[in-house]
Amino acid sequence: MENAADRAVLAIDFGGTQIRAALVSPDRAVHARRAVPTDDEEGVDAVLARIVAVAGESRDEAASSGLPDPIGVSISSPGPLDPWRGVVLMAPNLSGWRNVDVAGPVRDALGLPAFLERDTNVAVVGEWRYGAARGTRNAIYITVSTGIGGGVIVDGRPLVGADGTAGEVGHMVVDLDGPACGCGGIGHVEAIASGTAMARDGRALMTGDPTGVLAGLAAGRDVDAELVARAADAGDAGCMAILERAWVAIGALCASLLNVFDPEVIVIGGSIAEHRPRLFEVARTEARRRVLPVLFDRIRLEPAALGGDVSLIGGLPIVNDRIGDPAHAAGSRQPQGAPS
Amino acid sequence: MENAADRAVLAIDFGGTQIRAALVSPDRAVHARRAVPTDDEEGVDAVLARIVAVAGESRDEAASSGLPDPIGVSISSPGPLDPWRGVVLMAPNLSGWRNVDVAGPVRDALGLPAFLERDTNVAVVGEWRYGAARGTRNAIYITVSTGIGGGVIVDGRPLVGADGTAGEVGHMVVDLDGPACGCGGIGHVEAIASGTAMARDGRALMTGDPTGVLAGLAAGRDVDAELVARAADAGDAGCMAILERAWVAIGALCASLLNVFDPEVIVIGGSIAEHRPRLFEVARTEARRRVLPVLFDRIRLEPAALGGDVSLIGGLPIVNDRIGDPAHAAGSRQPQGAPS
Repeated sequence: MENAADRAVLAIDFGGTQIRAALVSPDRAVHARRAVPTDDEEGVDAVLARIVAVAGESRDEAASSGLPDPIGVSISSPGPLDPWRGVVLMAPNLSGWRNVDVAGPVRDALGLPAFLERDTNVAVVGEWRYGAARGTRNAIYITVSTGIGGGVIVDGRPLVGADGTAGEVGHMVVDLDGPACGCGGIGHVEAIASGTAMARDGRALMTGDPTGVLAGLAAGRDVDAELVARAADAGDAGCMAILERAWVAIGALCASLLNVFDPEVIVIGGSIAEHRPRLFEVARTEARRRVLPVLFDRIRLEPAALGGDVSLIGGLPIVNDRIGDPAHAAGSRQPQGAPS
Repeated sequence: MENAADRAVLAIDFGGTQIRAALVSPDRAVHARRAVPTDDEEGVDAVLARIVAVAGESRDEAASSGLPDPIGVSISSPGPLDPWRGVVLMAPNLSGWRNVDVAGPVRDALGLPAFLERDTNVAVVGEWRYGAARGTRNAIYITVSTGIGGGVIVDGRPLVGADGTAGEVGHMVVDLDGPACGCGGIGHVEAIASGTAMARDGRALMTGDPTGVLAGLAAGRDVDAELVARAADAGDAGCMAILERAWVAIGALCASLLNVFDPEVIVIGGSIAEHRPRLFEVARTEARRRVLPVLFDRIRLEPAALGGDVSLIGGLPIVNDRIGDPAHAAGSRQPQGAPS
């Protein structure tokens, strides 16, 4: 059998705000990019049609440019989802998305095997194969943006769990009496350190201080995490405290993950982590305060290396490994998106 | 090769208070039991000599009773430790135990391959093969007693981590601003829900209420977790609050573990869990309050099935698997305790 890792893939990045598609060649270059807004208020079928359309356009452009044919399609999607059946179980940020088969329509429309994976699993595989966790056998990826997600590599294999939902590091409890999370839980790190949480705390702060720095910057607009961060940069003590608390929570999360997984490295990416180097500074300090002494000297918290394209580039090993996997070939745990 | 799982093993359970040894036959029966106090104040060498002595006595008694010869020795020990080299890296409850080779002296004295494993890993393997987690591929074991420890089975294999120290669930952060842990960390579940933590909180309570129920029960003796639990049973509100807080923390820990590992079952054992059914009641409620909705309907928290002999019985698969493991046979990751 030819080395599966030599083949190009069509990569779809399906998110709450936009759908992207591209052809990823074996050298990890990203070609024939396409993007459309998700516009999920138009309903599930309209979104599925847009996913198929942008993927088809990207493939056609790649073909007309003489790029290699893709051997399959990776679909990066918010979870929880069932990677074997190719079904999104629930997408908290998309209305009406419950038990939606995504891999099936893509496979049928494009005539290629299609593999659905949680966005954070695509990212951890990408960073592990090609990025900041390269060369390790035990690695964790955390994304800090609107929400907090993650993925885990255990002894050279992605952690999947019993239902395919493992790796939800954003929903680990770090504060017993902490705030409510968007998922309905209590005290999760996402409820303290996500962009959504920072915006919530910023709004509460502004209500109590309607003439403060944050209110001045907002100038009547709704408060988001970026505005809270800008107010903190301008010296607003309340906003600085919101950010510091978030970084402490991420450091505590890292300590929990270090103590339970004993990984070689934790990679932190996402739009907030990318723009906030102090996150790493505080998280390292907090991880040291909370990690077992035996692990103290080898804590590695690293910024992600692949940036926003990680959810496309990570599709390369996802598709090649799953097509090359004997379990897949034999039909065991075979994703629904695979042609029969 | 003969089926390795058919062979008896000599099992040593090395703990902070006592050292036990027994022959475990393939039907999981425990024979020729021996036990001596650990008495670690006499120094590392004296303890090592006692480990070798009780193991030898157990083997001799088993042999004279016509029991099958053991194919190897399992040594269950507090961690952190290096299971490949057979070395205890640090034993927080034993003075002077840093980088102590335990498997080597046992192997040399008994002339059998000897395998050191963390006590909680022995327990999780035992409960997974023969006990409350039988038939699963993803399981977690938590022990709640003087400390809080644990072990994890991921996709049919024990979670080991980069250094062999994975699974330290007792040192996951559940309360950002919580109390200091014995390990030096902050906000760990062990600092809230272990016997040591309950005793600490009981002593503080008694200081503030020197004529209360707890003080009456203590009658001048030092307060331990059992006394706090008895005062709670007698209706002391402060002691009831200490226990409830502990059970809430364990429920939060379970939620974190469910969200990140997506296991089929969490098994909870240890002396405190064995005697406190309300732990399970509160932990289930708290886990439901804090788990992702997609996992809500299949939370399984089960009491351990094998009791105190789990650290002996768990040695059966530990030794048989490691002797049958090609990686071990080939010398890769070969524990120091294996004869060369």
